Amino acid sequence: MAKKLITFGEVMMRLSPPGYEKFSQASSFDLVYGGGEANVAISCAYLGMKASHVTRFPNNALGKAATQFLRRHWLSTEHVIYGDDMIGKYFLEKGAVHRPSEVIYEREGSAFSLIEPSMVNWEDVLKDADWFHWTGITPAISEGAAKCCLDAIKTANEMGITVSGDINSRSNMWKYGKTMQEVIPNLVEHCDVVITSSNGINQMFGLGDPGDKFQILAKKLIDVYPNIKKIVKKTRRTISASHHQIQGKLWNGKAYIKTDMLNISHIIDRVGTGDAFAAGLIYGLLHYEDKQALDFASAACALKHTVPGDVNTVSLENVQNLMEGDTSGALRR
Amino acid sequence: MAKKLITFGEVMMRLSPPGYEKFSQASSFDLVYGGGEANVAISCAYLGMKASHVTRFPNNALGKAATQFLRRHWLSTEHVIYGDDMIGKYFLEKGAVHRPSEVIYEREGSAFSLIEPSMVNWEDVLKDADWFHWTGITPAISEGAAKCCLDAIKTANEMGITVSGDINSRSNMWKYGKTMQEVIPNLVEHCDVVITSSNGINQMFGLGDPGDKFQILAKKLIDVYPNIKKIVKKTRRTISASHHQIQGKLWNGKAYIKTDMLNISHIIDRVGTGDAFAAGLIYGLLHYEDKQALDFASAACALKHTVPGDVNTVSLENVQNLMEGDTSGALRR
Amino acid sequence: MAKKLITFGEVMMRLSPPGYEKFSQASSFDLVYGGGEANVAISCAYLGMKASHVTRFPNNALGKAATQFLRRHWLSTEHVIYGDDMIGKYFLEKGAVHRPSEVIYEREGSAFSLIEPSMVNWEDVLKDADWFHWTGITPAISEGAAKCCLDAIKTANEMGITVSGDINSRSNMWKYGKTMQEVIPNLVEHCDVVITSSNGINQMFGLGDPGDKFQILAKKLIDVYPNIKKIVKKTRRTISASHHQIQGKLWNGKAYIKTDMLNISHIIDRVGTGDAFAAGLIYGLLHYEDKQALDFASAACALKHTVPGDVNTVSLENVQNLMEGDTSGALRR
Amino acid sequence: MAKKLITFGEVMMRLSPPGYEKFSQASSFDLVYGGGEANVAISCAYLGMKASHVTRFPNNALGKAATQFLRRHWLSTEHVIYGDDMIGKYFLEKGAVHRPSEVIYEREGSAFSLIEPSMVNWEDVLKDADWFHWTGITPAISEGAAKCCLDAIKTANEMGITVSGDINSRSNMWKYGKTMQEVIPNLVEHCDVVITSSNGINQMFGLGDPGDKFQILAKKLIDVYPNIKKIVKKTRRTISASHHQIQGKLWNGKAYIKTDMLNISHIIDRVGTGDAFAAGLIYGLLHYEDKQALDFASAACALKHTVPGDVNTVSLENVQNLMEGDTSGALRR
Amino acid sequence: MAKKLITFGEVMMRLSPPGYEKFSQASSFDLVYGGGEANVAISCAYLGMKASHVTRFPNNALGKAATQFLRRHWLSTEHVIYGDDMIGKYFLEKGAVHRPSEVIYEREGSAFSLIEPSMVNWEDVLKDADWFHWTGITPAISEGAAKCCLDAIKTANEMGITVSGDINSRSNMWKYGKTMQEVIPNLVEHCDVVITSSNGINQMFGLGDPGDKFQILAKKLIDVYPNIKKIVKKTRRTISASHHQIQGKLWNGKAYIKTDMLNISHIIDRVGTGDAFAAGLIYGLLHYEDKQALDFASAACALKHTVPGDVNTVSLENVQNLMEGDTSGALRR
Amino acid sequence: MAKKLITFGEVMMRLSPPGYEKFSQASSFDLVYGGGEANVAISCAYLGMKASHVTRFPNNALGKAATQFLRRHWLSTEHVIYGDDMIGKYFLEKGAVHRPSEVIYEREGSAFSLIEPSMVNWEDVLKDADWFHWTGITPAISEGAAKCCLDAIKTANEMGITVSGDINSRSNMWKYGKTMQEVIPNLVEHCDVVITSSNGINQMFGLGDPGDKFQILAKKLIDVYPNIKKIVKKTRRTISASHHQIQGKLWNGKAYIKTDMLNISHIIDRVGTGDAFAAGLIYGLLHYEDKQALDFASAACALKHTVPGDVNTVSLENVQNLMEGDTSGALRR
Repeated sequence: MAKKLITFGEVMMRLSPPGYEKFSQASSFDLVYGGGEANVAISCAYLGMKASHVTRFPNNALGKAATQFLRRHWLSTEHVIYGDDMIGKYFLEKGAVHRPSEVIYEREGSAFSLIEPSMVNWEDVLKDADWFHWTGITPAISEGAAKCCLDAIKTANEMGITVSGDINSRSNMWKYGKTMQEVIPNLVEHCDVVITSSNGINQMFGLGDPGDKFQILAKKLIDVYPNIKKIVKKTRRTISASHHQIQGKLWNGKAYIKTDMLNISHIIDRVGTGDAFAAGLIYGLLHYEDKQALDFASAACALKHTVPGDVNTVSLENVQNLMEGDTSGALRR
Repeated sequence: MAKKLITFGEVMMRLSPPGYEKFSQASSFDLVYGGGEANVAISCAYLGMKASHVTRFPNNALGKAATQFLRRHWLSTEHVIYGDDMIGKYFLEKGAVHRPSEVIYEREGSAFSLIEPSMVNWEDVLKDADWFHWTGITPAISEGAAKCCLDAIKTANEMGITVSGDINSRSNMWKYGKTMQEVIPNLVEHCDVVITSSNGINQMFGLGDPGDKFQILAKKLIDVYPNIKKIVKKTRRTISASHHQIQGKLWNGKAYIKTDMLNISHIIDRVGTGDAFAAGLIYGLLHYEDKQALDFASAACALKHTVPGDVNTVSLENVQNLMEGDTSGALRR
Repeated sequence: MAKKLITFGEVMMRLSPPGYEKFSQASSFDLVYGGGEANVAISCAYLGMKASHVTRFPNNALGKAATQFLRRHWLSTEHVIYGDDMIGKYFLEKGAVHRPSEVIYEREGSAFSLIEPSMVNWEDVLKDADWFHWTGITPAISEGAAKCCLDAIKTANEMGITVSGDINSRSNMWKYGKTMQEVIPNLVEHCDVVITSSNGINQMFGLGDPGDKFQILAKKLIDVYPNIKKIVKKTRRTISASHHQIQGKLWNGKAYIKTDMLNISHIIDRVGTGDAFAAGLIYGLLHYEDKQALDFASAACALKHTVPGDVNTVSLENVQNLMEGDTSGALRR
Repeated sequence: MAKKLITFGEVMMRLSPPGYEKFSQASSFDLVYGGGEANVAISCAYLGMKASHVTRFPNNALGKAATQFLRRHWLSTEHVIYGDDMIGKYFLEKGAVHRPSEVIYEREGSAFSLIEPSMVNWEDVLKDADWFHWTGITPAISEGAAKCCLDAIKTANEMGITVSGDINSRSNMWKYGKTMQEVIPNLVEHCDVVITSSNGINQMFGLGDPGDKFQILAKKLIDVYPNIKKIVKKTRRTISASHHQIQGKLWNGKAYIKTDMLNISHIIDRVGTGDAFAAGLIYGLLHYEDKQALDFASAACALKHTVPGDVNTVSLENVQNLMEGDTSGALRR
Repeated sequence: MAKKLITFGEVMMRLSPPGYEKFSQASSFDLVYGGGEANVAISCAYLGMKASHVTRFPNNALGKAATQFLRRHWLSTEHVIYGDDMIGKYFLEKGAVHRPSEVIYEREGSAFSLIEPSMVNWEDVLKDADWFHWTGITPAISEGAAKCCLDAIKTANEMGITVSGDINSRSNMWKYGKTMQEVIPNLVEHCDVVITSSNGINQMFGLGDPGDKFQILAKKLIDVYPNIKKIVKKTRRTISASHHQIQGKLWNGKAYIKTDMLNISHIIDRVGTGDAFAAGLIYGLLHYEDKQALDFASAACALKHTVPGDVNTVSLENVQNLMEGDTSGALRR
Repeated sequence: MAKKLITFGEVMMRLSPPGYEKFSQASSFDLVYGGGEANVAISCAYLGMKASHVTRFPNNALGKAATQFLRRHWLSTEHVIYGDDMIGKYFLEKGAVHRPSEVIYEREGSAFSLIEPSMVNWEDVLKDADWFHWTGITPAISEGAAKCCLDAIKTANEMGITVSGDINSRSNMWKYGKTMQEVIPNLVEHCDVVITSSNGINQMFGLGDPGDKFQILAKKLIDVYPNIKKIVKKTRRTISASHHQIQGKLWNGKAYIKTDMLNISHIIDRVGTGDAFAAGLIYGLLHYEDKQALDFASAACALKHTVPGDVNTVSLENVQNLMEGDTSGALRR
């Protein structure tokens, strides 16, 4: 029986100039949709899980089209809410070599940012779910989104559903009067699995000293939040916009585990690779031991770098092959 | 010596599914830019006039790209102002036959809507201009935009520059606390040329009775606003989304003039056809007697129905040929 | 509470040269999916109904992609079956004016043609449905498909679910050893609503004489199959590949009803317009009296001519406006 | 046994903005190739004849690509000559309704214009041919081209091969020091079939008076050039760039024949329609009596208006159906 | 005088999502055609040889379009046969880095698979040919195809025409009741040049032991089939889907020759690279000594990795430059 | 206050097959415009300078479209001249790995090549300019272009405006009767900054011996032309068409400066990278000390390899980041 994942967060319209055109050159935009949490849900759905995403879209043809994108990529959209007029957006100009990709966000006043706790009945949403996942982007968007997220986490926790949070957040996103240091720890308190970085632990929770190793910091975090079972990070070495290396690390309270470094040269689209890692981790922890789960997550992350768009549409078989060490990408027929 | 036109208003990013795809089918958007006033300026520039557009864009790569669009289409952009984050947008799904085109606007909170009178020095902008043109959309956007528009009109009037206003406005656009009846008349007071409709005169100024003929209403309007020299309207018969008929009408205080009906079957893009009419009228009144000017305006309007995008890029020669009655569209080599 | 429709039939990959290119000119194919029954289901879903389609796809990435197309367009795909290797296909070259569109089918040996009755549990599928719809194409494909179709009709009938059949069939499709005269009548026997033509009734059932009017033939058909409540036809006048006229006709056992002729000039895509009619009829009969239902069906049919692809993605509001006589296709903002 | 046609003339690279974009809007060009004579050859090849085209291309990858285009569309290219650097070109901006299509030629100094009589061995080329066709464009290009054309016509005439000439020419093309009045008559002298217009006969040969009917002028022309067996013209009524009407007329020395007017609304591409007429005439005269041949030519011409590009790729069956009066363009499956 | 090559085998329609899209993301397919043997013929034609391909296509517009593709790429298609309804197809999803390309074949029941020996007159086809080439795919398709292939090989052999076979075959292709071990050796018996691998020799002929070096196995194969003059293999190191290394090896009965390893980073399209190698070998052996021929083959193979589609369209000059060691790919102007 | 640059030279229409297609595969061309000098101007404009380009275009819609391209990319086009019929062109087929890009020029007889000194008033053009830049391509085009260029250089020199010349030229371009050795030195005499290569100095001026180091040759050149203040070269290591390394070198009369080697793997478009270097040098020398200026130039050059088209549209911030050593291309949000 396939496991079921629930995710919650904003889904944005993503508009990008074709190929490597810059904004100054474009006469059309490629159109997909994405958001850190829905990306995780879709990735898990492609791996064979059931997944439903909770979000809020404008009640017009663009909100419907965004919903249709989620449906196309196998999500249940029965808990999508509609209201207000604007869909969050981001514009992506794809970089290469020394030229960075550029992202311009337009999410202020979006239908999702105006969500209120009363709009979601989490007990109903989470019924028969096995896992709930959130990210540090959601509580940064608005007070309403933050409250909804906390409700979801608490409800899941009470219902015995595993909760994971990819808690990385950009401080320049927090514009509604709260800081991430004020909000994120309350959300983390009820989590089972936390994806973060050394810096993240240091800055968000004031634990340890800058420069402390992940292992040390992870231990300290679990000391403070004993509900956490695993703390996971993904290390990325950025050789150029076209060439990265990634590695997974995990502290489960007992052992410090890390994967081999995966070399990703000739990147197609690096957006959403962190979400692919999170999805791989969720699938992995549901189906494997910790080391294999981390290998699976890293493989999923690496493969996302080859898929255009925000979402990881690779198959379970693809991830398993890479996880088992076949890096050859040899033609299947 | 080419005449110079100044226009003022919002320029939006226009995103449309390719061909006749509906929003529910699109995987890319065609990208152009448009706005009622800039459309007029560009159309006049293609006819050989000098034209500069005043607007406000976000200070990022998207605002720059919008400026580049105006430059590409021959406008001077030296008076474009930059600030804030969002560019106004509209999404256009193109209809055909019985299926209407659908437009979704996203202009709330745009850089233009946040414009303030202090941001523009109209005396500087209007120096060496021959004509200033505005539309009823601008004062509907925000109090700041309305004030800027009034400043521009008054300054132009004082500097002896002809002022035209295409005063049609949609009441559902007015969201900042004023109605069009409160604002538009003050702007019209200083205008030389007014483009409107019978309904427009009746509703906006409370003149005449519903059903009164254009001629009657136009006379009454000039009685109240003696600064107005010409009142012009464009009649459109909508046989289907692919087939329209248009006709121009003009009252110049002495004579009532109208053009032959132009039959436009196999429409390519009907957006911006009213702006093409206004541009044709401005060019016409600067270069011809009233009847010819109206013929020129109608011809320009008809030709815009065959050009994709918001702006009318046809040549002076094209308009003159049609104005002189050559409706054949016969191949030039 | 939205009504629920179940449909059953093959869904083909549709490959067409872009625009008006001929097969001899193409270097790419536009890709959508379609089939007479799924087209009906999708059309009803866009109108606000619940709809689930039963079909069989190859168990590979192409079969998955076809399923994703159905999901994107709002269908439930929980009853899709997977097996074997090939997906049915059709190649469509779009005509214009005097040049006919050309269709090349490749459906022999498709996953759907290999369906067997044991693969579908109709009681389960039809649970909580309000309507079941089939077409004369399905029983032509293979003995297995014909048997499945009969099972579905009988089960629906027994469960008190309304059954409609669009029974038109091309005799050159019947290649597995049975003729349509042998098979179709058994399916019609249990139907409540039949869509056919005068020729269809005459040839398929041997009723009346060639040239008999629809009204006469429809009466005779109900005499033989008293289970039928309504017999409906759509008349199409083909002025050119770019210009059609359509009209709906209905006999409900008591009255003969027909709609005004709708004039459709500047056709975008005429494929699936019959399915749009059937969908409009289903929606109409569920929500209106017979005359209005027929008007609704004709309006839906007319609108489909403006939508690229097989499926009718227009909104309920669009159909209602046209049904009420607004043929102008005037821009909505 | 299929009949064989030889044609001679320049083939140009045709570059057009996609859809209805104007040159000022384009960011890409659609690429095909065309030329009055090769268009005829290709059209005949699609109808089932053998056809070989003689031309001269630059000896580089662009000349090779042009050759590949001819090969793709069924021509034999064994007699193509290579040399020099530049390929003739034309840029085509497609019009609609009242907006004319615009053509910009760049053929000066092209590889073809530098052709010399010594480069072609006509006896070899014409061996086993049934028909040779030329147009009035070729002798306008350069003295060398004119001489080659005369050689070809004379050789064909001597070898008993039917010669047809579509002798229309634009006087603004003649830049090498000769006028069409000086050159064309010498070429016509050896022709069996001449396609021209009333104006053409009057101006080119100084026969009759302006305004004389085609019938009168055609008779006079045959009196002067008794080698001519048939004189043919195509009348075009240009209602708009999207809507034409065409009719064929023929004088065969005994009878004056004309076809019904064909109504072509919703034109896709009107370039090359005259060549499609010529090709239809050649095929027609080789396979039918005069009236049918003219019907066939008109049908072929009408159908070309629906095919993008310069060349008529419709099938024999398509032409025959329209020739027999089926104007419905009804879908084939 | 250019040498002439005859090839025989299936040509499939190749449908691929644009760029790096996965099947789940595609809304169009890029369309080309390819097949192991025609790829070789086209590649040789681009190098300057004459080449004719023998195959069987459906007798419809799709079969014609496939023929047109071969003609466009310089093949003679005079021996193409038409019949039945379906064209063989393959769907290609292009991979990158660790993500493999995926291929889905649909060739069962294709027009080619239904070929029968009586349909080809090999003496006629091979008249004035210098070389005949086949691959191990053809005899796997059907008994008819295998018999045709054997006829061709024997006839060529008798006529003194060199025969090469690229005998690699996938055992999962053999579905008509024979194994490759039963069929391939009879075909190899009459060959002059064999392209295979160490595994291939071991498995197909039961010679040597698994793990034996190519040199050893090649010698053994020549002992058994003394008609063979050269045995050639291509080694490929697959670092990732975007980065391969290739090397040629050849045993000519006397000497064991190998080329330097060519490093191919940033692969554009790796399909058909083996066919490009075979074509390079054929051209090479016809024009050079063995070492140079092998260098030429390797260079041709390497260059194909940079060309989209199945066929190698690079020029003789390109191959010669790389063969002589210029790996720089420096811009030519 | 932004510095102002004037450039002079031909701007060509650039036509390239999409992606990595070869000319033999293309069915459309991507359309941009470029030329060595305008590329420099545009690049400087994107960095924040004012820039105006002097050139000559045909007086038709294509010449206008070329002007519009320059305007779109921020150039002033007030000094563009119109006349004659043809626009210079180049066709670019993009290579990869071992396959070189191929360029086919068509610039003979272009509007620019027919320029005459009397057509430009250099004192007017250069008024309020800070820098004038020319390249060795311009004097190669025609005697008129060479004379115009000399006029411009002398006038700039007299007006105290810095003059830079990128003097590399291809001897196969010089077709009007002069050699580069005869013409270039006269132009260099009045230059302040010279971009060249060791070979260039040796061959063009007959200085030093083949193989002499850049430092030695640069010294000798300054001895002969004491007006020169800096001699600069860019070294390029071409590992493959997809992977280059570049390094800047500069002799300023006192010191020999060089930058670190920049590694550019996964090249997007290498055309115009030399122009981007020259632009970076101009900007650099106007805003930094020599070493930083050279670092800036190299960074600008490297970044151009990632931008499709001829022109470098990267921002000042992008160049500064790379100049300061951030080679990571890490995503900006």
